[in-house]
Amino acid sequence: MKLYSANGAPNPDRVTFFLKEKGKMDAVEVVELSLLDGQHRSEDYKKVNELARVPALELDDGTILAESRAICTYLEGIFPEPNLMGDTPLEKAQIEMWDRRVELMLMMSIAGWFRHGHPKAAALEATQSKEWSDLSEAATKKACDYFDSVLSKTPFVAGERFTNADITLFVSMRFGLYMRYKCWEGRPALAKWFESMQARPMGQ
Amino acid sequence: MKLYSANGAPNPDRVTFFLKEKGKMDAVEVVELSLLDGQHRSEDYKKVNELARVPALELDDGTILAESRAICTYLEGIFPEPNLMGDTPLEKAQIEMWDRRVELMLMMSIAGWFRHGHPKAAALEATQSKEWSDLSEAATKKACDYFDSVLSKTPFVAGERFTNADITLFVSMRFGLYMRYKCWEGRPALAKWFESMQARPMGQ
Repeated sequence: MKLYSANGAPNPDRVTFFLKEKGKMDAVEVVELSLLDGQHRSEDYKKVNELARVPALELDDGTILAESRAICTYLEGIFPEPNLMGDTPLEKAQIEMWDRRVELMLMMSIAGWFRHGHPKAAALEATQSKEWSDLSEAATKKACDYFDSVLSKTPFVAGERFTNADITLFVSMRFGLYMRYKCWEGRPALAKWFESMQARPMGQ
Repeated sequence: MKLYSANGAPNPDRVTFFLKEKGKMDAVEVVELSLLDGQHRSEDYKKVNELARVPALELDDGTILAESRAICTYLEGIFPEPNLMGDTPLEKAQIEMWDRRVELMLMMSIAGWFRHGHPKAAALEATQSKEWSDLSEAATKKACDYFDSVLSKTPFVAGERFTNADITLFVSMRFGLYMRYKCWEGRPALAKWFESMQARPMGQ
């Protein structure tokens, strides 16, 4: 399989970190694209993903999968161990619930802050809006407070064990660094959790 | 099971339409909340979902599930027929890919347009941003063009059969009506598809 990726960009990282936690990085040939150079917008890459987005996974028969979480769903199906997305219908739903909370409350807020507030993102965004950036920055900080409170009650985002929701939170917190924002500062539970995540395969 | 819902609001509709397509509306007792009256922010409801959002599904043992797509994942697990979210790992991933494209490109854009541009949404949003609303309106129209093109090639969003991705698109198109925007006007494939969706269980 070929994984079209961009090291350090949040959505590609969700998939590579997922593979690292599965111990399956060697199952894919990584094709690295430079987003700042616009390589994802080349005519060649648009044949892979017409939406010009990374990541994309190309299966050996040429089938293309896009959208980070959907790619993880496929990888979970073909590499079931260690389980990262739940076993029973209830556990699957609970992990997805937490994964979505991280994505919708935190990751999307940082994305809005970055896309509309970072000088380098001007190349990716037709029009940057300071209002959007400012509101997203405030939402980011509120979401960090929330996940600090969540992690003061349970060792992992979705409860007692490491799951895909932890990967999404870890990626989001690193994404915050693009805005020089360290989500964990002044938030003890988030700080302790982040440190333990850095020691995992995905933190290497 | 108890389903805390708000008829006509997009995320609750995703779950009720999913249940209607499963023929399982009778499996839940629906507890209707009025969002405009702030019933989702009552202390009683915050005991159900501390984030004060609908929908939420309360299982018979008191377990709470939130986040519309996660609730659907649970319902798919306990009511497998008709299959709406895929069977094999590949099909599950493909349907999720399309579901996410609809959600992230269209539904989120309409949500931004509504939250920041509709007078009644002022009660839900601390600060409305006209810039955010205008950019979201433009993104909505672009996304509608994209899904019109998708549906000019395949009968359903994710390909040859009806899936959860169609529910999300149907909900999104109805959500557009909050902004008096009829996504299907001037877009023949979207119009034809929308008409066929209205005739389904979820359209009743």
